[in-house]
Amino acid sequence: MPDHTLEALNDAPSSAFVAALGGIFEHAPWVAAAAAGRRPFGTLADLFEAMRRVVQESNEEHRISLLRGHPELAGAAARSGNMTSASVAEQAAAGLDRLSGEREAEFERLNARYRERFGMPFIICVRRHGRDSVLSEFRRRVALEPETERETALAEVFRIAALRLDAQVAGPDRLPVAGRLSTHVLDTASGLPAEGVSIDLVEIARDGERPVASAVTDAGGRTDPPLVGGRPIPIGTYELRFGLGDYYRGRGIALPEPAFLDIVPIRFGIADPERHYHVPLAASPWSYSTYRGS
Amino acid sequence: MPDHTLEALNDAPSSAFVAALGGIFEHAPWVAAAAAGRRPFGTLADLFEAMRRVVQESNEEHRISLLRGHPELAGAAARSGNMTSASVAEQAAAGLDRLSGEREAEFERLNARYRERFGMPFIICVRRHGRDSVLSEFRRRVALEPETERETALAEVFRIAALRLDAQVAGPDRLPVAGRLSTHVLDTASGLPAEGVSIDLVEIARDGERPVASAVTDAGGRTDPPLVGGRPIPIGTYELRFGLGDYYRGRGIALPEPAFLDIVPIRFGIADPERHYHVPLAASPWSYSTYRGS
Amino acid sequence: MPDHTLEALNDAPSSAFVAALGGIFEHAPWVAAAAAGRRPFGTLADLFEAMRRVVQESNEEHRISLLRGHPELAGAAARSGNMTSASVAEQAAAGLDRLSGEREAEFERLNARYRERFGMPFIICVRRHGRDSVLSEFRRRVALEPETERETALAEVFRIAALRLDAQVAGPDRLPVAGRLSTHVLDTASGLPAEGVSIDLVEIARDGERPVASAVTDAGGRTDPPLVGGRPIPIGTYELRFGLGDYYRGRGIALPEPAFLDIVPIRFGIADPERHYHVPLAASPWSYSTYRGS
Amino acid sequence: MPDHTLEALNDAPSSAFVAALGGIFEHAPWVAAAAAGRRPFGTLADLFEAMRRVVQESNEEHRISLLRGHPELAGAAARSGNMTSASVAEQAAAGLDRLSGEREAEFERLNARYRERFGMPFIICVRRHGRDSVLSEFRRRVALEPETERETALAEVFRIAALRLDAQVAGPDRLPVAGRLSTHVLDTASGLPAEGVSIDLVEIARDGERPVASAVTDAGGRTDPPLVGGRPIPIGTYELRFGLGDYYRGRGIALPEPAFLDIVPIRFGIADPERHYHVPLAASPWSYSTYRGS
Repeated sequence: MPDHTLEALNDAPSSAFVAALGGIFEHAPWVAAAAAGRRPFGTLADLFEAMRRVVQESNEEHRISLLRGHPELAGAAARSGNMTSASVAEQAAAGLDRLSGEREAEFERLNARYRERFGMPFIICVRRHGRDSVLSEFRRRVALEPETERETALAEVFRIAALRLDAQVAGPDRLPVAGRLSTHVLDTASGLPAEGVSIDLVEIARDGERPVASAVTDAGGRTDPPLVGGRPIPIGTYELRFGLGDYYRGRGIALPEPAFLDIVPIRFGIADPERHYHVPLAASPWSYSTYRGS
Repeated sequence: MPDHTLEALNDAPSSAFVAALGGIFEHAPWVAAAAAGRRPFGTLADLFEAMRRVVQESNEEHRISLLRGHPELAGAAARSGNMTSASVAEQAAAGLDRLSGEREAEFERLNARYRERFGMPFIICVRRHGRDSVLSEFRRRVALEPETERETALAEVFRIAALRLDAQVAGPDRLPVAGRLSTHVLDTASGLPAEGVSIDLVEIARDGERPVASAVTDAGGRTDPPLVGGRPIPIGTYELRFGLGDYYRGRGIALPEPAFLDIVPIRFGIADPERHYHVPLAASPWSYSTYRGS
Repeated sequence: MPDHTLEALNDAPSSAFVAALGGIFEHAPWVAAAAAGRRPFGTLADLFEAMRRVVQESNEEHRISLLRGHPELAGAAARSGNMTSASVAEQAAAGLDRLSGEREAEFERLNARYRERFGMPFIICVRRHGRDSVLSEFRRRVALEPETERETALAEVFRIAALRLDAQVAGPDRLPVAGRLSTHVLDTASGLPAEGVSIDLVEIARDGERPVASAVTDAGGRTDPPLVGGRPIPIGTYELRFGLGDYYRGRGIALPEPAFLDIVPIRFGIADPERHYHVPLAASPWSYSTYRGS
Repeated sequence: MPDHTLEALNDAPSSAFVAALGGIFEHAPWVAAAAAGRRPFGTLADLFEAMRRVVQESNEEHRISLLRGHPELAGAAARSGNMTSASVAEQAAAGLDRLSGEREAEFERLNARYRERFGMPFIICVRRHGRDSVLSEFRRRVALEPETERETALAEVFRIAALRLDAQVAGPDRLPVAGRLSTHVLDTASGLPAEGVSIDLVEIARDGERPVASAVTDAGGRTDPPLVGGRPIPIGTYELRFGLGDYYRGRGIALPEPAFLDIVPIRFGIADPERHYHVPLAASPWSYSTYRGS
């Protein structure tokens, strides 16, 4: 639930506005302070755009200090507690607070190399990434030209800010920060939606898999809410696992032992966290098909 | 390659016939000896039927001694070396020579209980079973009535014998002991067979997965030889993994990173080891379908 | 657009109520007159149920006169103009005003035989039927026992009345008289909805085909409105024809001449006029699949 | 059945060789006469290549007289009987002997214009074309440059000759003149091949449809022989019609009336007469998919 309404923020004293939105940009309440003077805002998009412009139009020194104000990823700051609570939650959601020893060591090396090369911490909007893609982005960006990388980092700062703003302030609109992952199970043997199919969604990372969501299909063969909604779908590889065998056994259909199809896995990649991915399953006890819908 | 031809065995002295086929039934050369007198045989099926009748028509004492002559499964005999080489190879192919400690302990318990209950070792045609189904059969059969179980055990003895006979003797026919697992990859974006798709077949058991076969599709989108052929397909759960992403990338198709479809897994069960299972994949970069064909 | 609101009818003088709803039951304003005394009605369903009870609770003489008040199907009354305008429109929508000579002759024969056998005209809710199913129902019902057939005819009278009531009166609810036929085209070569696909829906009857609807898919690969909506889908056989070849040519995809897939026909039957039939097409230039969804 | 064997033709007197193969090139026995001197031929391909070279290496006058020796298409010669019997059969197979008045008039116009422009009759290998594509080729070619068109006509002469040679002479090889159209029906509700499905193949031309083949699937869900085999598949549009409803009714599956899927049409184009087109149907009572296989 958002903590504030846009309406209330428009009417609040500047100090209250800054108190509310000072953390949208990490350790940089000056952005909110400058935006306060540009009120009122008709939409969240207007407010976000105003804050973005404050940053863009600030001098280089300010922008660099903004970048330097971010915590390191999976690094000492995380363990020492010197992060905003928003950063703590974001890194934890991505699983960066419980890396294997080997991975943690690689993050330490990359953090050191990145800081030495660019003089700032590595900033990435972790809510948009799975564990593998955080690492591959880190490896890719540590080799970029400094100017290119500063722009990349700033774009990530805006993504982080947009997600925080959308979560904390209720307005007449939403910022375009959320993707959606949905499914639909059709029983092609009966021509009806398959009701009661259990579904597990797991993230497949190189160092193991991680449960993301579980659901059971309703009378329309769908899940409500969708498997992922209201937030970015982290870039990565996933597997949907459908309990098709149990579904048919529950309907009194005789299946061999083991069934030809029992747990049906569909493995797919998410490359665009803000899009709608619809991954349906049309299945009989002996066949199935799927596709990327929307 | 078979060691013998039916033709030569028909003409051989009885002693040579028994030397050749004395091991078809474990530690029971008397079966071959009796069958020698019924020569000549026109087909392998005739020869097998003659040996089967020798057993069926022998007195109960002989039949029970035949059952008792078999080695225990994954048991002391296996480790002590007191098995025919055929039995050693069969148990190894099923992975019973390298069980986890926990599984081995369960086999020991089941062996002991089975021997106590039925006075003979547990006999199963292991070439027809994956590791999970050997165990579930063991659990199921240890609870059967003694008479039913003796018949079950004898049927397994015949299955073992048929597999050995088919492998060792070349005749005008083959015994119906072999299944087949084949696949076919169709590129539905181009309407052509998909050539050069890498495929891995793995067995999915409760204590882990085990590679079974690997192949790359030919110009017809098939593999030659089939993934499994010329032998039973062990009862169990399998996963075919198709390297679809690499196939499309190799054809210059731009895919997102990660691709929506990269490794495509198809998980299926084999319940009938002597049947033909055809599991094709018809796929574009964004959709696929499969079915059990034949 | 409905002519009346339930609210206004609840408050109207009885005479106005009867003037408005006197034609819901053909030539039987007494039904509306009796229902007027049971006002007010909270929902259309309540109003319909009240009218239905008036009929059910009337004496047999009334019910039979109600049945006899209906016009013959595709018969003399139709041509002579002695039908309510609602009946004229309903029969025309079903194409019964332009039958071939042979079919018209069969209707005449059936009408005569039916009237002789049951002493009333054949009543059927023609909006729920295609031309073939009107005729097959006629053939089936003319052979029923008189009592069964009177019940069948009365059920049809209620269906006709429900459709008229739902069309003429706006209330907080709708009567469950409408089905829906929708489609969705997915381009499995690109993983996106197929926009701009032309679609024709035709009814396939034994004496020829008849266009029902045409549409072009929108950016979501769907049609808005659906191909059939807000009314029953007449029982019958249909063909959806998708202009897939033109779609791919329009996207610059090179196709052979003739294309492997150009016009893609999907032929299907509608057996339940009040249900939702979703008939999607997932296609590449070389493959497609469909299923009955909902 | 071929009339001759290559072996016998190699050993025959020249006069017999010419008597046998004089009609391979229409009204041009001199081609066979010259080829006789180049015997023996190890394969049909060698024989055909020798005859092709005789034509290519002849002087222009000979080649032009060869082209002029062909009958007009669907023209006066056809009706007057002044054609080789091979030409008669070829034109009849393409349905050119029973054109509608309008189409016949267009052929007359095109014949006249073509002869005026190029001084020879229009030659096309009609066994490779459906009625629509004969006409569209005619329209296309009548506008070509004379030199280009003479080469096109000569290429058609070779196609006609290859088909005749392959049909009349048995050798160790076949000329690559035959395509194949096959199908396969899979019952995805049972996971088994669908046996006993009736199939009709019709050609869809602009002036109506024409039955090509009918078959019923065997226990493997296939037809033997294939729907088209041993000859080119004429370029054109076709529809396969599968009797899916009857198949399921015959297996005791309850279907609505009308069935959702009853006759399933698959419409497709053939652009390459010498290729293998495999057009399978994988279907349940409520869904199906198809693709171009090979």
